[in-house]
Amino acid sequence: MASSEFDLIARYFTRPSIAHGPGTALGIGDDCALVKPAPGHELAISTDTLVSGVHFFADVRASKLGHKALAVNLSDLAAMGATPRWFTLALTLPEIDPQWLEGFSRGLFALADEAEIQLIGGDTTRGPLAITITVLGELPAGKALRRDRARDGDDVWVSGTLGDAALGLRSLQGTVTLTPAHRAAAVGRLELPTARIELGKRLLSVAHAAIDISDGLVADLGHICARSGLGAAVRLDALPLSEGLIAVRNPVLRADCVLAGGDDYELCFTAPRSAHAEIDSLGAQLGLRLSCIGGMHAGKGVKVLDAHGAAVAVQSAGFDHFSKHD
Amino acid sequence: MASSEFDLIARYFTRPSIAHGPGTALGIGDDCALVKPAPGHELAISTDTLVSGVHFFADVRASKLGHKALAVNLSDLAAMGATPRWFTLALTLPEIDPQWLEGFSRGLFALADEAEIQLIGGDTTRGPLAITITVLGELPAGKALRRDRARDGDDVWVSGTLGDAALGLRSLQGTVTLTPAHRAAAVGRLELPTARIELGKRLLSVAHAAIDISDGLVADLGHICARSGLGAAVRLDALPLSEGLIAVRNPVLRADCVLAGGDDYELCFTAPRSAHAEIDSLGAQLGLRLSCIGGMHAGKGVKVLDAHGAAVAVQSAGFDHFSKHD
Repeated sequence: MASSEFDLIARYFTRPSIAHGPGTALGIGDDCALVKPAPGHELAISTDTLVSGVHFFADVRASKLGHKALAVNLSDLAAMGATPRWFTLALTLPEIDPQWLEGFSRGLFALADEAEIQLIGGDTTRGPLAITITVLGELPAGKALRRDRARDGDDVWVSGTLGDAALGLRSLQGTVTLTPAHRAAAVGRLELPTARIELGKRLLSVAHAAIDISDGLVADLGHICARSGLGAAVRLDALPLSEGLIAVRNPVLRADCVLAGGDDYELCFTAPRSAHAEIDSLGAQLGLRLSCIGGMHAGKGVKVLDAHGAAVAVQSAGFDHFSKHD
Repeated sequence: MASSEFDLIARYFTRPSIAHGPGTALGIGDDCALVKPAPGHELAISTDTLVSGVHFFADVRASKLGHKALAVNLSDLAAMGATPRWFTLALTLPEIDPQWLEGFSRGLFALADEAEIQLIGGDTTRGPLAITITVLGELPAGKALRRDRARDGDDVWVSGTLGDAALGLRSLQGTVTLTPAHRAAAVGRLELPTARIELGKRLLSVAHAAIDISDGLVADLGHICARSGLGAAVRLDALPLSEGLIAVRNPVLRADCVLAGGDDYELCFTAPRSAHAEIDSLGAQLGLRLSCIGGMHAGKGVKVLDAHGAAVAVQSAGFDHFSKHD
């Protein structure tokens, strides 16, 4: 590859003005980056890959893809209560398209700046379009929101509304018809997800356990159950729905989106009953809907109950890509 | 995807017995892993991707690929003098093939155990075969071997022999014919590279600057020159060659392999003249050839000189994948 092409790629991802943020001894330009957590802190680390045709449509706008590739990783930091600090970017591209690179890097850095996270390295290779980001966040040592710390009697909470990204996906696929406003809102949730970073940080002193909803509420709350050795019961009529999802007439489709829809990136967390008022107040401060949807109890697995307390059958097991093993 | 397939993948990459090494507060199984460097230390971080058909032949044995995917990343840690600690694995697979997964994980973990580095997370996705690994190593704060610290008058050194991986690649491609023993040795260097971890650690107190040779000697030493604001001159007849490369009759091919051959993963480093005897002694202790091949001087770029001190033209600019931007 000609050196002009090396230069071209470097131009989009080199930002000398922020090469040395706090705790960053060395950024891009050496064999490794060098970083150091603040005293008394530990690092939270997560990796997520997005593959063209699997996790996004090949024709999605590059700036949205840049946002989403980082957002899904930031969501993992949020679920631990970590403060975003650094990330690496492994970008595999079928060709060098300056317009695509400009859009991708613009979307990526707009979110990076907002989240105050710094690109410290990576690798750009030729091949089928895929993006792997590894994020590092900082936490007071020993304070992380883990999946295995839910307690019997905890309330189960979720942020925002559920199922919108799944509804947006179905709308893009043409299997459901929405009003233009509902379609825009749902597709926006799919393509430009929001990581609940501030909520995660504020939950450090309140919640017992947390996870981000990337594979669907039942699947992800199921991880908290499995790791905590408990069961959970959630009330279908307590699940927070957007206007677009409320307008969906088919109750099976609606339940499938809200219970098993992936890509929402809301937080699901458990907290003691005594924290109820504090969590309500936190939601008000953040301008973010926080809904108590059920509770943890001795047992195993997630039960979904209808208004009469009868168990609802869950159609789908979660988002159908391969396993995430972190 | 059926949950049995999730379970299948998890089986190959879950090693509960080592889930909590020193400094690892939480390994695989949550939204993030949690780690903490030792007091007074910082973390070195690097990411490398291998793409099928670009960085390896699609039919390479899975165990060798598992080794190489980790080795090329360990080499970046070695080039900083860092001690390997943790890594994440992002694996994109076209299908779930238990035999392939068994071989890949076996090769990966054999090297991970040897290097005492721990898998702490990752993501497995469906798509064209590609592997992205992010490694984290530990270093005494402020002591890293950087590219930008070479000094005027430093000697330039390399470890091992150069050009063997490039020779092995040409042998596999059928553009050069080698004896069976030379072919096995060269292909071994290509497929099962050795990261010079111990050398890197021992150089922390000796060398001024270092880089690993992944793109070819001239290209990589060129990075030290550019970042240190200096030039380098190396003597062609001082470059360490294997028996296989010495047996190559074509001097242009030989020079091209040794000067511009990628994938060697030897270290190139600079050190003061006064450290010469200490470095000779270090090579003897490690059982590793260390060759003084030239020096750093005021100026820019890398000059290669023949036995008469005349400049040699360099044919190729380095390995032809896209740019590595860390």
